Amino acid sequence: MVADMASGRVIGVDLGGTKLLAGMVDSSLNVHHRAHRFARGSDTTQVLDTIVDAVREARDAANGEVDAVGLGIPSLIDQERGVAVTTVHLPIRDLPFRDLMAERLGLPVFVDNDATAAMLAEWRFGAAVGCTDAVLLTIGTGIGGGMVANGELVRGAQGAAGEFGHMTIDIDGPLCPCGAHGCLEAFVSGTALAREARALGLDLTAAQVSELAHDGHAVARTLITEMGSRLGAGIANLVNACNPQVVVVGGGVLAMGDMLLAPAREEVARRALAPSRDLVQIVPTRFGAESGMLGAAVLALDGVAASEA
Amino acid sequence: MVADMASGRVIGVDLGGTKLLAGMVDSSLNVHHRAHRFARGSDTTQVLDTIVDAVREARDAANGEVDAVGLGIPSLIDQERGVAVTTVHLPIRDLPFRDLMAERLGLPVFVDNDATAAMLAEWRFGAAVGCTDAVLLTIGTGIGGGMVANGELVRGAQGAAGEFGHMTIDIDGPLCPCGAHGCLEAFVSGTALAREARALGLDLTAAQVSELAHDGHAVARTLITEMGSRLGAGIANLVNACNPQVVVVGGGVLAMGDMLLAPAREEVARRALAPSRDLVQIVPTRFGAESGMLGAAVLALDGVAASEA
Repeated sequence: MVADMASGRVIGVDLGGTKLLAGMVDSSLNVHHRAHRFARGSDTTQVLDTIVDAVREARDAANGEVDAVGLGIPSLIDQERGVAVTTVHLPIRDLPFRDLMAERLGLPVFVDNDATAAMLAEWRFGAAVGCTDAVLLTIGTGIGGGMVANGELVRGAQGAAGEFGHMTIDIDGPLCPCGAHGCLEAFVSGTALAREARALGLDLTAAQVSELAHDGHAVARTLITEMGSRLGAGIANLVNACNPQVVVVGGGVLAMGDMLLAPAREEVARRALAPSRDLVQIVPTRFGAESGMLGAAVLALDGVAASEA
Repeated sequence: MVADMASGRVIGVDLGGTKLLAGMVDSSLNVHHRAHRFARGSDTTQVLDTIVDAVREARDAANGEVDAVGLGIPSLIDQERGVAVTTVHLPIRDLPFRDLMAERLGLPVFVDNDATAAMLAEWRFGAAVGCTDAVLLTIGTGIGGGMVANGELVRGAQGAAGEFGHMTIDIDGPLCPCGAHGCLEAFVSGTALAREARALGLDLTAAQVSELAHDGHAVARTLITEMGSRLGAGIANLVNACNPQVVVVGGGVLAMGDMLLAPAREEVARRALAPSRDLVQIVPTRFGAESGMLGAAVLALDGVAASEA
């Protein structure tokens, strides 16, 4: 009997800008407990406390028997040092996230960008299983991106790859908060959809536009169709550049389903070249809102397996 | 003494749409002989005959002592079967290129896409040496592209990755011959530059616009500056997606030098996100018009090394 017998269970944490999901997950990716937190915390300490608290809840549900914790955070991650260099929407900057959390939790901790984590879950267990080349976009308030090439996750030279939201698709288009014009995110996001609705005199959230469209509201449907076409132009660029077997779309916009994805597929057929356009499948995430949490769990499972090898 | 003692010399062939360059190259990438051909051949047999003829000239210059031949062709290549599936501007389609050429030349033959070959040469010996992540655009009549991620060439699921020319940068922009609107190639190419000049009443080739600009012609300079900005928007998309250490620009447009690259760099600074935009270098190819030929030679050198290992 070894001192640290592996339980085969880990905790995956998806830290969003406004909410947090921690799941106690086994090596078959079954989720045994979920801990939700809705406060984002106004400073670094509060954010870290919220994570620790949710992880403890998930660990208690497993009677303490977990091997490691994986964290997906909306940050640029320096993988070598485990440092969160910059973070969108959260007060986390130049923070030695991995070591800090490992010390507070008393467990091995593995950290990655949240969209990269979502790509990992979908690639290893979900909508992109078996692909050598794949792309993922998670579309909510903004756009996150992940990529697989040659059967490996692509993080880029600094861990900053996958910024598909700031791809120019309309060089003289509307101003994006990033300061550039015509970024994909300025057309395709909850924020953009609400703005377009407002321009037509409809004071609605993206979720409300989606609900109205499901109920058959013609203007709401048109808004979503147009957003789908713009999304398709962005996806076509990725298809032409990367020749992936699959493009996985996740995030809050999935509530729109094929109202969004059908026009996106049509635009890809128009703008991507053969043979890439004929091969690629444009599909929703398998794990929906849990891709990020499950990907963080896969990070931890992989990390444990590597340390035992 | 072994029967097939390696000479350490190979022949690299870059097959363009209108011309061909074959070079006899040693393992330090010194070029000992160059064979040029300017006829493209109007059918498959003529194209193959032209290649065989140029390879023989290069081989004769080495007294027959070459180990292998590498071919870079503007085709979609099925790497497993060595088949040229489709080819732009040349009558080559569904052709078992590798085996055909090996039979006719009596030498081992290695085949890849020409832009991938150029990326290989620049990555291993040129402007992208030491990079884990890099992107190459060769811009002439059209745009070819190559990519390195995680320290490996990226070819995509079918060998069709790197089609950067058909990246949408202006969703309602001018019609591209591919049938879509606002492709990068519709703004950035010799063809596009000549079209823009014509729209201003100047009946000039791209090379003539470049010459006039070098002589200080204001309108010609403006045309090139605008093309550089559009190029920068396309490069920014690749920088945001891939976070490369370097973007290498090659092809005929290099004659424009910093008249083209300076506005491209400015646009990347505006449109790419930190930290990617601060890291990336946008540089000309080291090997100029010979990147493709040298990359084909590297293919052959690698192939010989692998077969001896």
